[in-house]
Amino acid sequence: MKNSNKLKIIPLGGLREIGKNLTVLEYRDDIIIIDCGMTFPEDEMLGIDIVIPDIKYLVKNQRKIRGLVLTHGHEDHIGAIPYVLKRIKFPIYGTKLTLGLLQNKLKEHRLLDTEMHTVSHGQKVKLGKMEVEWIRVNHSIPDSSALAIKTPLGMVFHTGDFKVDFTPISGSPIDLNRIGEIGNKGCLALLSESTNVLRPGYTISESKVGDTFDRIFSYMTKSRIIIATFASNVHRIQQIINAAEKYNRKVVLSGRSMLNVMSTAEKLGYLRMKPNTLIDIRNMHKYNPEHLVLITTGSQGEPMSALTRISQGEHKKIKLRKDDVVILSATPIPGNENAVSKVINNIMEQGVKVIYESLSEIHVSGHACQEELKLMYSLLKPKYFIPVHGETRHLQKHASIAADMGHDPNNIFVLENGMVLEIDTQKAKIGEEVPSGRVLVDGLGIGDVGNIVLRDRKHLSEDGLIVVVVTMDKKERKTVSGPDIISRGFVYVRESGDLMEDAKDIVTKSVNQCLRKKTTDWNTMKSAIRDDLRSYLFSQTKRNPMILPIIMEV
Amino acid sequence: MKNSNKLKIIPLGGLREIGKNLTVLEYRDDIIIIDCGMTFPEDEMLGIDIVIPDIKYLVKNQRKIRGLVLTHGHEDHIGAIPYVLKRIKFPIYGTKLTLGLLQNKLKEHRLLDTEMHTVSHGQKVKLGKMEVEWIRVNHSIPDSSALAIKTPLGMVFHTGDFKVDFTPISGSPIDLNRIGEIGNKGCLALLSESTNVLRPGYTISESKVGDTFDRIFSYMTKSRIIIATFASNVHRIQQIINAAEKYNRKVVLSGRSMLNVMSTAEKLGYLRMKPNTLIDIRNMHKYNPEHLVLITTGSQGEPMSALTRISQGEHKKIKLRKDDVVILSATPIPGNENAVSKVINNIMEQGVKVIYESLSEIHVSGHACQEELKLMYSLLKPKYFIPVHGETRHLQKHASIAADMGHDPNNIFVLENGMVLEIDTQKAKIGEEVPSGRVLVDGLGIGDVGNIVLRDRKHLSEDGLIVVVVTMDKKERKTVSGPDIISRGFVYVRESGDLMEDAKDIVTKSVNQCLRKKTTDWNTMKSAIRDDLRSYLFSQTKRNPMILPIIMEV
Repeated sequence: MKNSNKLKIIPLGGLREIGKNLTVLEYRDDIIIIDCGMTFPEDEMLGIDIVIPDIKYLVKNQRKIRGLVLTHGHEDHIGAIPYVLKRIKFPIYGTKLTLGLLQNKLKEHRLLDTEMHTVSHGQKVKLGKMEVEWIRVNHSIPDSSALAIKTPLGMVFHTGDFKVDFTPISGSPIDLNRIGEIGNKGCLALLSESTNVLRPGYTISESKVGDTFDRIFSYMTKSRIIIATFASNVHRIQQIINAAEKYNRKVVLSGRSMLNVMSTAEKLGYLRMKPNTLIDIRNMHKYNPEHLVLITTGSQGEPMSALTRISQGEHKKIKLRKDDVVILSATPIPGNENAVSKVINNIMEQGVKVIYESLSEIHVSGHACQEELKLMYSLLKPKYFIPVHGETRHLQKHASIAADMGHDPNNIFVLENGMVLEIDTQKAKIGEEVPSGRVLVDGLGIGDVGNIVLRDRKHLSEDGLIVVVVTMDKKERKTVSGPDIISRGFVYVRESGDLMEDAKDIVTKSVNQCLRKKTTDWNTMKSAIRDDLRSYLFSQTKRNPMILPIIMEV
Repeated sequence: MKNSNKLKIIPLGGLREIGKNLTVLEYRDDIIIIDCGMTFPEDEMLGIDIVIPDIKYLVKNQRKIRGLVLTHGHEDHIGAIPYVLKRIKFPIYGTKLTLGLLQNKLKEHRLLDTEMHTVSHGQKVKLGKMEVEWIRVNHSIPDSSALAIKTPLGMVFHTGDFKVDFTPISGSPIDLNRIGEIGNKGCLALLSESTNVLRPGYTISESKVGDTFDRIFSYMTKSRIIIATFASNVHRIQQIINAAEKYNRKVVLSGRSMLNVMSTAEKLGYLRMKPNTLIDIRNMHKYNPEHLVLITTGSQGEPMSALTRISQGEHKKIKLRKDDVVILSATPIPGNENAVSKVINNIMEQGVKVIYESLSEIHVSGHACQEELKLMYSLLKPKYFIPVHGETRHLQKHASIAADMGHDPNNIFVLENGMVLEIDTQKAKIGEEVPSGRVLVDGLGIGDVGNIVLRDRKHLSEDGLIVVVVTMDKKERKTVSGPDIISRGFVYVRESGDLMEDAKDIVTKSVNQCLRKKTTDWNTMKSAIRDDLRSYLFSQTKRNPMILPIIMEV
């Protein structure tokens, strides 16, 4: 059957959104999954912990899955794995640090029986009829990879997250030679990340930040230095350690994820430092402040993070001192600007100096800007171009850049999650859509919180709640107790009279009216209570709390 | 008494924060209020409509108040006036457009009996022992002013919000000559705004945006053009109208605040247009799309705004068409980035072109950058320098710029709301603090929503609610009805068994245990129910809903 010789590229996450990356590559009876990430909830997803991709399609086709191949160890590429493994099992392939970070997660979720295979750059792994090669790229976490996947129809290249850094901190620059070689042999399809596609030019090298650290360390000789950055940015932390050793400072780590990632990175050999550079936070008091560097989490102003607690004076072990200097070595992710500003302001109000991005070069991005994206494209000259990893505005801009470079617009595909790109020997086209979407995780619940629950939470959060309870004698048809009114998240202070006492009268009236009308159905009575009380409260307060009438029967 | 000859400068809002500007100037028995603005609630202020300054100090000293003087008509400078007028009365002074916009508000709040005086630039008004002069500045709303306030101790200069625009759209550039004159005569204290103090250089002229509009209009000849901007940015809208007239397009306004502000601006003569340029949205269908420009609200992605509804296909009168072009002529205010991105993505997904800030010069700021702030400082050379209108990081940066320009650091005051700067003929010092803070407005309630209510709303929003009702016979000491359990915003789907049925058993057990122990107090029983149910639900779900036990007595 001709149809079955098609190669299918199916994004189940990461398109028209930032985060929860998951792409499916399918050829006949073989499926390879590329990355399996999570994302953080949007503001309106009240109470949700994380968001993962909908994997109905994978569950249905689980017998085809040959393995999950990982590009790197960031949460938006590996964070959903534990939740997915609870439904379906498959072997996982990735570089050493990537699997090291994943292992911490699987331990927490008691999934250590998962089959895992460590691969190195240049290595090829055969998975069914396809073969995956890991190729070195630069990014804000070590051991990052692009994937070149040989399929019976040709080479599919997935960039993962990347930048071009000719002076990286450890390891070598991105393997442009190998990428060029693949391009020369012919690339069928290129899936290229789009995070920084709106930015012209080149991304600055990570080592530039090291220069800035060196400069700051060289003149801040009287200060304790506190630096907040992403726990997974091992290169950044290596540079802080380098500066610390050069200027005779001890390094203290603070924040749960910082300790976790660093212990994994150190164990696996991704951090180089003298044996006595790192000290435990409990031994901090043994050193003078000017001989210390603290590296903490919280560069995004996360409410419970180390830096936020430090800024509020609520950190048990780290109290700010007048001559400290705090460095935020990160850019606020869109949506976090206010939280980050608040942390900066709180620290400054204690008379402490803060160095942050608008003032100094203490952060660079891990993602390719326009010229790097063009370089990647030029080396591979793919037949089909599929921008990935970005919101609609990013994907469309990336598509227009490819078109500007001469790519046939008919062979550029700006996909959506769940869309199926079917490639045969002749052409590529959009096939029938498969299920996709987002699954909300709240505590132990995966996917049980839906729109109704979120709508209730929103209503409760904005206007609070009023519970009205009446106990009725069903036979006698009369009130035997109540109405009682309890409120939460709702309050209104009137100049005269008690609103809640008046509200009770309103409910009593509604109940009596129902009884007079010989209403036999409690639901009708509940509706009457709700309607009467709602319009009374709105007229008095212009507020609209959730009203929960409860009728108890005796 | 020597003490009473002091001049007091008391910020009650606008310091260490953006928004709700309010400054008090007090000399003996005279108080002048400068601006009286609101701010929008932060994320954690669930359900709050707006935030206004705490005015306890003004209420206490109301007999001293000679008037409220306004710098311009933005919400963060006039938005709290209706709420304050409900407590205390005073005459209000401002330029024509400022009072025109205020009047709309006062009408809504039925406060039209307020005494209002229109002033023009250059005019002086005596208020008690002080005299206020309005001085022309440039800003993103016409009729903006700085205030020069002559006091018995010397001149106090308040910049209001300003930029230096040598090619403004209407009116003249900022009155640098008059400011220089004041500086030459001697300026006692300068209160200078700090919004853009982190940006080096100069703010671009508003007329630059007009050039961009002209360019876009000149080549988008086949498209309907939809432009979102701030309703109060009359200059921006004037430039859109200019381009529309030049390229033979009719202008349609959409959005409640857009219609309100424009009708006021037009009535007062702040918009110049041909009599038939503006058409009603109901007549839109009579024109070809390429002969139309729509100006809408929603440049910040506000949920109920015109542009947001258009982007979601939910606007009754405006449906997007493939060949429309949408222009966002505004920068996202920090915190709104995600909302704005979502609007852009939604529109692009319908195949419609979007032009926004990262791509084109379609917005400029209304606030002075570093060089303009230095110019203002240099012209006035004040004895005391007080940065205002900014978060801590802005105020501190502004202070350091003044220090860099040679200002004695002892005469720079980075104040907080509620701090009192006392100036006498010799020196300035911080006096005893006065009450200040923020008052939350929710519906008709001003200040009744406090921390407990907000904490409850937050709890409800994250984990939802479980109400447990039991009806007890007090004499017989037995349950006569229930326990019944109702939940909202909480749900949990278990693989086996019904969580809520099990929860009822838990409650029944708690109640029976209490009865066996002969607990006489219902509160003790409620606590037992709450504790038992909470630990059961957490163990099962890792969620922690608000639990509301209610015991009805018969």
